[in-house]
Amino acid sequence: MTGRTTTHTAVGIVGGGPAGLMLSHLLSRAGIDSVVIDNRTRTEIENTVRAGILEAGSVRLLVDTGVSDRVHRDGDAHEGIALRFGGASHRIDFAELAGASVWLYPQTDVFTDLADARERDGGDVRFGVRDTQVLDVATDRPGIRYTDAGGAGHEVRCRYLVGADGSRSICRLEVPERLRAHYVREYPFAWFGILAEAPKSAPELVYTHSPRGFALISQRTETVQRMYFQCPPDTDPDTWSDAAIWDELQARVAGPDGFTLTEGPITARTVLRFRSFVAEPMRHGNLLLAGDAAHTVPPTGAKGLNLALADVRVLAEALEQVLRTGDDAALDGYSTRALSRVWKAQHFSYWMTTMLHTLPGGTDFDLRRQLGELESVVGSRAGSAYLAEGYTGWPA
Amino acid sequence: MTGRTTTHTAVGIVGGGPAGLMLSHLLSRAGIDSVVIDNRTRTEIENTVRAGILEAGSVRLLVDTGVSDRVHRDGDAHEGIALRFGGASHRIDFAELAGASVWLYPQTDVFTDLADARERDGGDVRFGVRDTQVLDVATDRPGIRYTDAGGAGHEVRCRYLVGADGSRSICRLEVPERLRAHYVREYPFAWFGILAEAPKSAPELVYTHSPRGFALISQRTETVQRMYFQCPPDTDPDTWSDAAIWDELQARVAGPDGFTLTEGPITARTVLRFRSFVAEPMRHGNLLLAGDAAHTVPPTGAKGLNLALADVRVLAEALEQVLRTGDDAALDGYSTRALSRVWKAQHFSYWMTTMLHTLPGGTDFDLRRQLGELESVVGSRAGSAYLAEGYTGWPA
Repeated sequence: MTGRTTTHTAVGIVGGGPAGLMLSHLLSRAGIDSVVIDNRTRTEIENTVRAGILEAGSVRLLVDTGVSDRVHRDGDAHEGIALRFGGASHRIDFAELAGASVWLYPQTDVFTDLADARERDGGDVRFGVRDTQVLDVATDRPGIRYTDAGGAGHEVRCRYLVGADGSRSICRLEVPERLRAHYVREYPFAWFGILAEAPKSAPELVYTHSPRGFALISQRTETVQRMYFQCPPDTDPDTWSDAAIWDELQARVAGPDGFTLTEGPITARTVLRFRSFVAEPMRHGNLLLAGDAAHTVPPTGAKGLNLALADVRVLAEALEQVLRTGDDAALDGYSTRALSRVWKAQHFSYWMTTMLHTLPGGTDFDLRRQLGELESVVGSRAGSAYLAEGYTGWPA
Repeated sequence: MTGRTTTHTAVGIVGGGPAGLMLSHLLSRAGIDSVVIDNRTRTEIENTVRAGILEAGSVRLLVDTGVSDRVHRDGDAHEGIALRFGGASHRIDFAELAGASVWLYPQTDVFTDLADARERDGGDVRFGVRDTQVLDVATDRPGIRYTDAGGAGHEVRCRYLVGADGSRSICRLEVPERLRAHYVREYPFAWFGILAEAPKSAPELVYTHSPRGFALISQRTETVQRMYFQCPPDTDPDTWSDAAIWDELQARVAGPDGFTLTEGPITARTVLRFRSFVAEPMRHGNLLLAGDAAHTVPPTGAKGLNLALADVRVLAEALEQVLRTGDDAALDGYSTRALSRVWKAQHFSYWMTTMLHTLPGGTDFDLRRQLGELESVVGSRAGSAYLAEGYTGWPA
């Protein structure tokens, strides 16, 4: 048996995505050591295309804690969205209704900013490991074992272990079945997503209800756009020609106002399946779960990354408190506080999803009722403000 | 063949419930003659127990047109409701949030006020007829034929024929199938309703979400209360003992705040099935549909009677216009205007229903998401105001 290098730290973090890195960053600012490990290499993570809408609070967190000023420079403030239905667009003015805006800034850039900040501040972040195992989570000295890229064995021993290891979390499985509840909702549709080389078709995101199904027109840069349309979950994206994709998108947004999409070469295509998921509690012994490891949401409403950042903001406070006072009630407090926001976000994502998507097997009643709901929302300042509050994020 | 007495009038109205009588009343105020017929006797209608929440606009209509000042005297202004979930009550303050209140005033009393007003003003209202038929609705001279209680045949010929004949409308069937759309949604539950001789358990309606299912605590008088709880649609009310009913109601409202219902003898019980239904268009030729004949809603949110009154307010204006100018575009305008409100009300009723009822076969995710929604609504002024606006009724 070869020797294993052991590192001791206050907080061991499994997962080097935005949740894990932001937590490590916040702990470092509070003078608390942590070690982050991730199975993926930094390059692999940077090449994963993910959504890019940041709530105002997420942007503040990045800027105020010194992670990024690039978000203000390279990101685009969006002060509203359009809800499009019945062939007409209705703007929801976030700035006016909720006193907040959101920022279009890709998750990949958030990751890069965080990884750079951790590197700049001498953080201990270990990408590209394998054979990760977590151990002794119910004890005072939980651990992580893994093998590094060179084949050497490592162990990290810590006071608290954080599972920020995404939707296929191994940490989550450490909570004994009798003590955990997993809440799941599957959706009978998926998103067909494309990247296209084209100028913007609209200045802000356009959430579109159509009898043909949902479509989302979003932006990436001045010359690259991201668009989605609802499709059956078993759709093979490679069976669709570029022309068929554009036809479908155009048909969904078409209306008497003549709105059309500016087309261009499609450079990437993918079918994105999704579900709603919550693991409760988010604490077991000295194990804490954060981000996608504890919950996933449908992409409608763009809550995933924001929820992960909201988790670790609360978690960093709780860890600081328990490490300072030894009173581990703060850890249960983390689970309770985080879950309160999680369920609001679950509802918000479910609401946006079910208001805008057609249900396979749905009736004309459902379609008309959705239009009745959309009319109610855009026709009421309170209804519009309720949506704007949810979209821009509730106070922490 | 015996002779048939024929009456000529401007507007023939099938159905002498609140919609038909209110329309006849409004037309009379505009100097337009009408004849109302109904299969039921006045006593039969007065003995039908129905819901009793009037929107502010409905009350104004009754008071301002001289139908009733009794609603202000005998009705109870309710300036809010409680949403109860997780064993705690959260008040939605209509007065503060929407600048409006609703009135607790039984539908039976609305009917009596209207029937009295029509009698007082010399209106032609014929209750207790049978064998009603409508004819020639697509012509300029539609008609109604019926047999009176004494067995004599009658015919009413009119310029416009209004079907206000309730959810089992015969008039609605006169719209040819190829020209009409019927939108339906069935719900997999019903309401078990009781009348109990007991003092009030709460000053305002309590809409209760519970893992055991929905419950509604409402009031009727100081000494008689009306309560409901969600049950399977095939429930036989007579198989429930009084004790079992009270136990179920108490269990649904129970919570750490110690809220309990004041019990008393149960004097009536019924199982109320319901569905969402809309018939489009609400005009065909010279036939106009109004109220339950064109649409029914689940009782959650108490929109049924209010929607019927909103219909006839718009319809009276349209009929006045077409009779004055001969331009029958006003009739299509009626259908469009009424349906816009109908679909908002359909959505509102669906929303209140699905937010508060447990779905048979629903998962724990659904239950938790509902709680996330209820927390979002009561935790947000905008969310609460959006609900308050819908409950108290949108502007006409």
